[in-house]
Amino acid sequence: MTPHPTPPALPTLADLPSGDAHLIEKPLSSEQVFRGRLLDVRLDHVSLPDGGRATREYIVHNGAVMVIPLLDDGRLLLERQYRYPLQRAMIEFPAGKLEVGEAGIRCAVRELREETGYEAAEWAHAGQLHNAIAYATEHIQVWLARGLTAGERSLDEGEFLDVFAATAEELAAWCRDGAVTDAKTLVGLLWIQQWRAGLWDLAWKTEAEHVAAG
Amino acid sequence: MTPHPTPPALPTLADLPSGDAHLIEKPLSSEQVFRGRLLDVRLDHVSLPDGGRATREYIVHNGAVMVIPLLDDGRLLLERQYRYPLQRAMIEFPAGKLEVGEAGIRCAVRELREETGYEAAEWAHAGQLHNAIAYATEHIQVWLARGLTAGERSLDEGEFLDVFAATAEELAAWCRDGAVTDAKTLVGLLWIQQWRAGLWDLAWKTEAEHVAAG
Repeated sequence: MTPHPTPPALPTLADLPSGDAHLIEKPLSSEQVFRGRLLDVRLDHVSLPDGGRATREYIVHNGAVMVIPLLDDGRLLLERQYRYPLQRAMIEFPAGKLEVGEAGIRCAVRELREETGYEAAEWAHAGQLHNAIAYATEHIQVWLARGLTAGERSLDEGEFLDVFAATAEELAAWCRDGAVTDAKTLVGLLWIQQWRAGLWDLAWKTEAEHVAAG
Repeated sequence: MTPHPTPPALPTLADLPSGDAHLIEKPLSSEQVFRGRLLDVRLDHVSLPDGGRATREYIVHNGAVMVIPLLDDGRLLLERQYRYPLQRAMIEFPAGKLEVGEAGIRCAVRELREETGYEAAEWAHAGQLHNAIAYATEHIQVWLARGLTAGERSLDEGEFLDVFAATAEELAAWCRDGAVTDAKTLVGLLWIQQWRAGLWDLAWKTEAEHVAAG
């Protein structure tokens, strides 16, 4: 490969214009164009940074949580669930939508118990991701759970899914080979690897401690 | 932490029922409930594995590509772009929607050139991700590009974004600390790290070779 010197003009993040006035789109009007049981679709008119006009279509979403459950034997708890938009079953970490006003830790505990039957002694909040920034307000909180004990699951009506265990190495191979393509689950693997390598820290607390910390 | 033995009943992937009859949802009817410039929203009635009925709401999306551009000095090319649904500028890898019938490599080359001005000597297709499996058919192809040469960018009308360079270590720190939350970009970091660690392979080819390979 012939070396191509990087042009000196290429800025770093610190070199970029301060403030976002050259990027920001301002809302002029907003209309709900569809409201189903699941989707709340909006159509906004906006003004662009150069004064031009455009429309923006997007889904208003209350947010969700993903749980990365770490079994005491070192394996991970995963699910297989049919995802109708893709017309196939997908391997993924347990996840579910936040109820309005629900604290992230409460949702994480609830979804883990409902979908897998497991309860966790300790929880860590890794961060959040935005999965569809072009057309949805959705964020997904990333939680890890350990000290797991099995119990009875209680799926929502109309919810069907398999629960199974796999090693992080198996999950990594599935992500590499395309057997796992769910974005949140790929991000879950990133967190597992960075944390196990000692590169990214996690603050483990009980559910009650997380609730008390707000 | 008290050890909690894993119950022997917990299956592995290989132990799960073969076939997906216990998971599959079958379409009964499908209706387009909104068609904007961007979003195509459908409402389907489906039959559930237990014979029950439900509705499924989702977006039909033609797919997209993300490009992870690797500069010869080891740094990465990134963008900052205002994402209206989130009402803020986000750090992300270059990306864009596939045109109908467009080959992934063509879209990757086009989006990199339009958004950053760069052309690449070699390309590798890492895989794909599904970013909103609960409510969108969207897939995002993950491409890496190297042997970069700078040129003039040509943004779409109404498109505004900053281009800048950062090291993989800077990107990892931003992902850890929450400055980067875009799911596809987090997955991009996973690929960079796995590839640089020699764990995940990439097959580098020219654009023409990718086109010839179909």
